[in-house]
Amino acid sequence: MEKKRIRMIVAYDGTNYHGWQLQNNGITIEAELNRCLADLLGEEIRVIGASRTDAGVHALGNVAVFDMTGRMPGNKIAYALNQRLPEDIRIQKSEEVDGDWHPRRRESRKTYEYRIYRGEFPMPVKRLYSYFVYTPLDVGRMREAAAYLEGEHDFKSFCQTGAQVESTVRTIHSLWVEEQDSDLVVRVCGSGFLYNMVRIMAGTLVEVGQGKREPESMREILGALDREAAGPTAPAHGLTLVKYEFMS
Amino acid sequence: MEKKRIRMIVAYDGTNYHGWQLQNNGITIEAELNRCLADLLGEEIRVIGASRTDAGVHALGNVAVFDMTGRMPGNKIAYALNQRLPEDIRIQKSEEVDGDWHPRRRESRKTYEYRIYRGEFPMPVKRLYSYFVYTPLDVGRMREAAAYLEGEHDFKSFCQTGAQVESTVRTIHSLWVEEQDSDLVVRVCGSGFLYNMVRIMAGTLVEVGQGKREPESMREILGALDREAAGPTAPAHGLTLVKYEFMS
Repeated sequence: MEKKRIRMIVAYDGTNYHGWQLQNNGITIEAELNRCLADLLGEEIRVIGASRTDAGVHALGNVAVFDMTGRMPGNKIAYALNQRLPEDIRIQKSEEVDGDWHPRRRESRKTYEYRIYRGEFPMPVKRLYSYFVYTPLDVGRMREAAAYLEGEHDFKSFCQTGAQVESTVRTIHSLWVEEQDSDLVVRVCGSGFLYNMVRIMAGTLVEVGQGKREPESMREILGALDREAAGPTAPAHGLTLVKYEFMS
Repeated sequence: MEKKRIRMIVAYDGTNYHGWQLQNNGITIEAELNRCLADLLGEEIRVIGASRTDAGVHALGNVAVFDMTGRMPGNKIAYALNQRLPEDIRIQKSEEVDGDWHPRRRESRKTYEYRIYRGEFPMPVKRLYSYFVYTPLDVGRMREAAAYLEGEHDFKSFCQTGAQVESTVRTIHSLWVEEQDSDLVVRVCGSGFLYNMVRIMAGTLVEVGQGKREPESMREILGALDREAAGPTAPAHGLTLVKYEFMS
């Protein structure tokens, strides 16, 4: 039977999942998609995700592809699959693409947001989607520090140790710290990100905002090529994968 | 022993509660506060809430008072109580007030927000705090309709039937429909609200936005003094009690 490849934009609340990737212990986004697609299409399905987000990380627009042989039109998959998925996963779009289109082999720009809630006490309705910080943060200093990270750099200091990658050089197109009432949103757009890179950048920027580090120290942190030089990894639940843009 | 009265600003995520008020079946905000305060202070405590919000409704700033005999200073209660409360309830402030200060016997302004998420498909990270509407909404029409509801009116048509109240006349100081990216926020400030009033106003404004009702029809709805004349009650989870301001 002829196969066709379907691309989906996948949104989820990561709170109740052990991340994207299939695991033996714990429910994952990938496992839920495979299960509900098999149920819908009556054949075994294995999705390939663009970003294998960690436990607790959210997405408005992760991307996944899979191959199917059935006759359901690509653009109808979203509607039918959403009927079967749990309410914390929702397909935003589905469409047929070329059979060799692969989300991790295409040049792309990814946008992430790391959200910080500032207050004297945590705000319950914010708790699942932002990192609570009660110490004052100097936003001007954080923006100054963020500017050092823009451009092409070796981000080894911002990569969790033990990650297996050929190169730790990446390009950050933009890194901006935006104030939205009580929230501080670190919005970063780049060609690609190392393991925990956005969370380590967020954790380091928070320390700059608290006055524990100088904005100029970003240059030395980058130069050190050592995870120990950067700040802590900010908690997963503050992170949201906002969108993927493919150049081809 | 001498009693003192403590006023607290209480924030909560209403998702997992059967509303504010004590019930025989189901856990409530009031019950959790009473339980954790008794545990903290070693005496029986009965809080009095300003607004007895419904199941699923959220609050950034509900207000409650209670009397205690212990020596813990009023402004320290927030810190100590937050250590004991579940993470979806957090005291934002606590302070001692006059012994006869009662939150429902003071002139006040209350601000509520009703949040609508507009999209082709639901967005998982928005699902607990907004009402998903996939039909197009004409915001200009909704604002035009909202203007008819501002001021002092008999809001009987916007009150759930069966509610026991002396008068259904209330004053809306402002009612504004704000666009925040994909969200539409109906923000209303008033002297007081009837049972389900904000949710019925939101449900009716959505119908105006969908073109099912004319903005001018608000005048007739008010004049009818009949719940049947207004639109549906929008779901509870889109509603958030934002703040209380006491005039005295």
